[in-house]
Amino acid sequence: MARPLPTRPRRLLPISLGLFQGALLLFFALFVTYDKSSAQAEDASLVAIQLYGIFPLFQDIQVMLVVGLGLLLTFLPHYGLSALTHNFLLLNFSTQWALVLQGLLHYFHHGQVHLNLHNLLTAEFAAVTVLISVGAILGRTSPCQLLVVAACEVPVYLASEWAIVTRLGVLDVGGTITIHVFSCYFGLGVSKALFGAAQQPEHPKETPTHRSDLMSLVGTFILWVFWPSFVAVLCQPGDVQHRAILNTFLAMSASALTTVVASSLLESDSKLSPGHLQNGSLAGGVAIGVVADMAMPPVAALALGSLSAVACILGFKFLTPFLVRKIALRDQCGIHNLHGLPGVLGAVASVAVVLVASKDNSGSHFSQVSSTGENAREEALGQWGDHGAGRQALCQVVGLAVAIGGSLLTGLLTGAALRLPCLARPPERLCFDDSMYFKIQDQVESPGPGDTAEEGALALKERV
Amino acid sequence: MARPLPTRPRRLLPISLGLFQGALLLFFALFVTYDKSSAQAEDASLVAIQLYGIFPLFQDIQVMLVVGLGLLLTFLPHYGLSALTHNFLLLNFSTQWALVLQGLLHYFHHGQVHLNLHNLLTAEFAAVTVLISVGAILGRTSPCQLLVVAACEVPVYLASEWAIVTRLGVLDVGGTITIHVFSCYFGLGVSKALFGAAQQPEHPKETPTHRSDLMSLVGTFILWVFWPSFVAVLCQPGDVQHRAILNTFLAMSASALTTVVASSLLESDSKLSPGHLQNGSLAGGVAIGVVADMAMPPVAALALGSLSAVACILGFKFLTPFLVRKIALRDQCGIHNLHGLPGVLGAVASVAVVLVASKDNSGSHFSQVSSTGENAREEALGQWGDHGAGRQALCQVVGLAVAIGGSLLTGLLTGAALRLPCLARPPERLCFDDSMYFKIQDQVESPGPGDTAEEGALALKERV
Amino acid sequence: MARPLPTRPRRLLPISLGLFQGALLLFFALFVTYDKSSAQAEDASLVAIQLYGIFPLFQDIQVMLVVGLGLLLTFLPHYGLSALTHNFLLLNFSTQWALVLQGLLHYFHHGQVHLNLHNLLTAEFAAVTVLISVGAILGRTSPCQLLVVAACEVPVYLASEWAIVTRLGVLDVGGTITIHVFSCYFGLGVSKALFGAAQQPEHPKETPTHRSDLMSLVGTFILWVFWPSFVAVLCQPGDVQHRAILNTFLAMSASALTTVVASSLLESDSKLSPGHLQNGSLAGGVAIGVVADMAMPPVAALALGSLSAVACILGFKFLTPFLVRKIALRDQCGIHNLHGLPGVLGAVASVAVVLVASKDNSGSHFSQVSSTGENAREEALGQWGDHGAGRQALCQVVGLAVAIGGSLLTGLLTGAALRLPCLARPPERLCFDDSMYFKIQDQVESPGPGDTAEEGALALKERV
Repeated sequence: MARPLPTRPRRLLPISLGLFQGALLLFFALFVTYDKSSAQAEDASLVAIQLYGIFPLFQDIQVMLVVGLGLLLTFLPHYGLSALTHNFLLLNFSTQWALVLQGLLHYFHHGQVHLNLHNLLTAEFAAVTVLISVGAILGRTSPCQLLVVAACEVPVYLASEWAIVTRLGVLDVGGTITIHVFSCYFGLGVSKALFGAAQQPEHPKETPTHRSDLMSLVGTFILWVFWPSFVAVLCQPGDVQHRAILNTFLAMSASALTTVVASSLLESDSKLSPGHLQNGSLAGGVAIGVVADMAMPPVAALALGSLSAVACILGFKFLTPFLVRKIALRDQCGIHNLHGLPGVLGAVASVAVVLVASKDNSGSHFSQVSSTGENAREEALGQWGDHGAGRQALCQVVGLAVAIGGSLLTGLLTGAALRLPCLARPPERLCFDDSMYFKIQDQVESPGPGDTAEEGALALKERV
Repeated sequence: MARPLPTRPRRLLPISLGLFQGALLLFFALFVTYDKSSAQAEDASLVAIQLYGIFPLFQDIQVMLVVGLGLLLTFLPHYGLSALTHNFLLLNFSTQWALVLQGLLHYFHHGQVHLNLHNLLTAEFAAVTVLISVGAILGRTSPCQLLVVAACEVPVYLASEWAIVTRLGVLDVGGTITIHVFSCYFGLGVSKALFGAAQQPEHPKETPTHRSDLMSLVGTFILWVFWPSFVAVLCQPGDVQHRAILNTFLAMSASALTTVVASSLLESDSKLSPGHLQNGSLAGGVAIGVVADMAMPPVAALALGSLSAVACILGFKFLTPFLVRKIALRDQCGIHNLHGLPGVLGAVASVAVVLVASKDNSGSHFSQVSSTGENAREEALGQWGDHGAGRQALCQVVGLAVAIGGSLLTGLLTGAALRLPCLARPPERLCFDDSMYFKIQDQVESPGPGDTAEEGALALKERV
Repeated sequence: MARPLPTRPRRLLPISLGLFQGALLLFFALFVTYDKSSAQAEDASLVAIQLYGIFPLFQDIQVMLVVGLGLLLTFLPHYGLSALTHNFLLLNFSTQWALVLQGLLHYFHHGQVHLNLHNLLTAEFAAVTVLISVGAILGRTSPCQLLVVAACEVPVYLASEWAIVTRLGVLDVGGTITIHVFSCYFGLGVSKALFGAAQQPEHPKETPTHRSDLMSLVGTFILWVFWPSFVAVLCQPGDVQHRAILNTFLAMSASALTTVVASSLLESDSKLSPGHLQNGSLAGGVAIGVVADMAMPPVAALALGSLSAVACILGFKFLTPFLVRKIALRDQCGIHNLHGLPGVLGAVASVAVVLVASKDNSGSHFSQVSSTGENAREEALGQWGDHGAGRQALCQVVGLAVAIGGSLLTGLLTGAALRLPCLARPPERLCFDDSMYFKIQDQVESPGPGDTAEEGALALKERV
């Protein structure tokens, strides 16, 4: 017997978002002012130059997150509007939420919150973790559920980032451990707790089409192009930033070629899989983040990029089906292959670089770089000796463990919370369909019945 | 009885454009040289740094206008090529035309015209008004008609901008009043005078499809990302520019979330309307332009962004249908909702900020910012006292009135001129169709008869 | 009788690419280190500023090559994934290959290879020649064949660029002669030698659709927007770079309008051809590269932009069909019209500018610019007198001849090598089809039989 969906759950999203906006306004009214540079009049040009250094990279990152990642998610052919919009919504919500939390922490320490482009960037990095995590549950979740993920993940990320970077002193300029590994296992935890152990057949709308694969590939390329900005934006200006950009470029470039090699070799008829290309090309960027600014030779960046692409492709080919069979783990976008495996690989590489750099104090590539004296980290590396380097290497390992353990645990808890009925998880047969969330008017173009808004509404009504 | 369209009108476009190109060459040959910085050899690096400051923002704005705005206009599924191309054509024509007019004015004052990136930007801003205005008549006009709009609007804009900014001293760094409000009412005037009072049924090709909505949303996101560059490009370098960027970001971010809230609440089944999202997300950027560099707390930017998104959505839901019913006003892209209402809201906000800032001279957020002493405008605000602030507030109001009045009047005149038969307005049933203006070869993909180039030509011949 | 394609050719691509990656790693491990600026601690900010100057332009160029050019090539409706991917693959392979070759040359001169963003840019410029050349043979070649083209073209380009710029002293800041003319005639040589003299009927999948034309036009616009960055990135910072940006903008803008004029006038019913627009709009950018930084008045940039657009459109309308009829020359993307004709035009213009500039030493536009004293080239122009200018003009002509002659010859040889059977040239009826190279799963959307992956595999098996 058909029972119409009650109105309240459908209103939950706008009402809760509206309340959040109100609270945000209140918080900003009470606590937040603009950052004022301490520069005197004669230093005004210095302030301007600092802005010239950060703003173009900030814009690059915005393009990555809003356009690049959004398009990458449109590989589901009937879910493009939802994927783009939910990504955009989550980015804005999470950034604002991170600004509030960061501000509160700062307020209780210093009595006032100053906003500047640097704060905004760190808040956006918190939002990135949410955007990555929800890739695991893309298409089978309601916007309300996604907002709950964001609400839970941002504070956990901030705590985790504080523990890993501030307390443990882990070196991770590009967020490989703090962002990619963390968000991957958080997302997998959410997915596991939300979907449970039920094996389900493939959904007919889950399969990409030629056209949706093309759009998604354009998204990949946008991410690929601007990835160096993401890794290098918070680097020390000058030679260190220059090196981080070059390392990232080399790793991405090696990833791109290795992806083609690995994907061709693994498929029986040597054809490329679009999904491999969309993800493998970016694996090098994930892995390189943690070592991009370290004193290591260019060949290490190339090798890391190649290895992480191989890990990513092997993950798609073997690990994902294995996890589905064994523990019914669903990972819609394959975030474990793009963010988890390459992230862990990067963390391991950082241990190696730290250990090698300390032993390699004269006559090598490393000392040539570290002798420039403009980088405190390198100085530190140079002065550790074996003891200090060993400690730093241990820190990197502990940091990785904290990121994985903390995110899995909190992700599982968050996923359990998502099972609340009021969050209106869509029924299976209405998944992956924009007509659940958008008023769409085209009956002409839809390939078959069940696609139009009317049909969707009808199907919704029949839900028992 | 069928009468073939005479050849002359169809040749009018290339011939008039060709003549314009010739005149442009002549003008440039006679009057224009490159700007030479007055820098001595030792200041060469200063010139370079100034270029580094402006060029990335210039490129951002180019992407916005050519790619972002172009894609936003592709929401008409059979009119994408025309929308993209006409937008591109108008941008180039209007920029060149503005360069000539600016140059002439300058020439008769100073005897020589120097071209630099700054001039080019102000000429592009003149072109932006044209691109916005023609949104009201998109799809029902010939390229010749669009060129006439551009030819008329650019000089009117230059005069209006001179009156509002130079004579009245209105503060409007992001062009809220001078660009957005002006172009909106100019476009509405054109539409009213061109289409008259006839009510017409909806055209079958007017309805967006899932795919065209997706493309259009990508365009929105490109505009959304780069909007801070548009607002801040002409700001004073340093802290003021930094603040303008942050204010714009906050307003856009608040707009994005509030759009989702407002659109969900207004629709009966809580679904989002793609059109709301495509426009509402940008409303905050329109409104913030006039106050982005002023000394106001961040919360004001958030509030203005939210309010303008609400105004935009309410406009789409209630005001547009009302205006259609009452005065048969056609506004194809809803420019009144995206540029008119938020623009007026921004102007009102600027009055409030000016008045509050002057009263708020000690111990508040404002004075903290204005005490940095690097911004002449803030100094002015600080020194107005109540009297000067009142006068400035009045200026803002008068400026708004001049923009609306002047643009409506000249828009109506321009629209009347567009009724000239030689401008080849397309017949209603051939509107919204790329095959009117493009050689298109795909018979396979077109969903039905009447879509192909042959059919279009046939239909054109039958026009009596 | 059907004979299945043997496995070996299909494995050739990943194996050879994999070997290349291994060799690259070895080379980098042995020879390459990061560039270390010679700056002392107090000059760190100078290093940072230099990076701020080049990095945003580098990113612009990356977007052009990966996203802009990639999308431009998607005008073949069933070949979009392949066009995007092969472009991306070739860019990465050629850049790495150029880094190796550049490095080897440098190593044997200086004993060590330092990598920096500037090297990376010159390596990418080598890759650009490959991306342009393969436009002539797009859709009818296997990835293995494309890699052979890249492997051959990069060293030839490096030699040609050394001969033209270093030995002959040709002025060509934007690569008009060294990149565009060179790669065009190389590509035509390859096409001629590969396809021979057989006339073939048009392939049914060769025709663009409305949708693929739209995507391709977006690619054009991305290239159009960022072209100034491509031309100006290696210019001297300051006024010269500023002028190169303005010249490029003016030429592109004139191209855009003139393309509309020329395309409308040439077509019988005054409709625009999407192909004309996609190419003609960019012709000005190709032509202006060689003179962008020279001391010439702005009107010259406008005129050159217009002329090159006319040349491009005339080429598409008359020259391409003529060459097909007379010598069966295939040029899938029309690279001769976009890169060849405008490139030659630009080279001729550079001769004129060099000759005029030298005669025009006082009281003209030229001297005003050249008297700034910040540009060594202009100084040189100013001091040549008629004799030196004549010599430089001769150099430009000889450089053009070397570029055309050398590239045609080596292109023909490369094309002959592509006929090797092991390179797996696709059979004619499987050309222009993504299912040859990609695992594609959409049976629903494909317009007819013969399009799906299964059909493609079946057809492949039937090949005798």
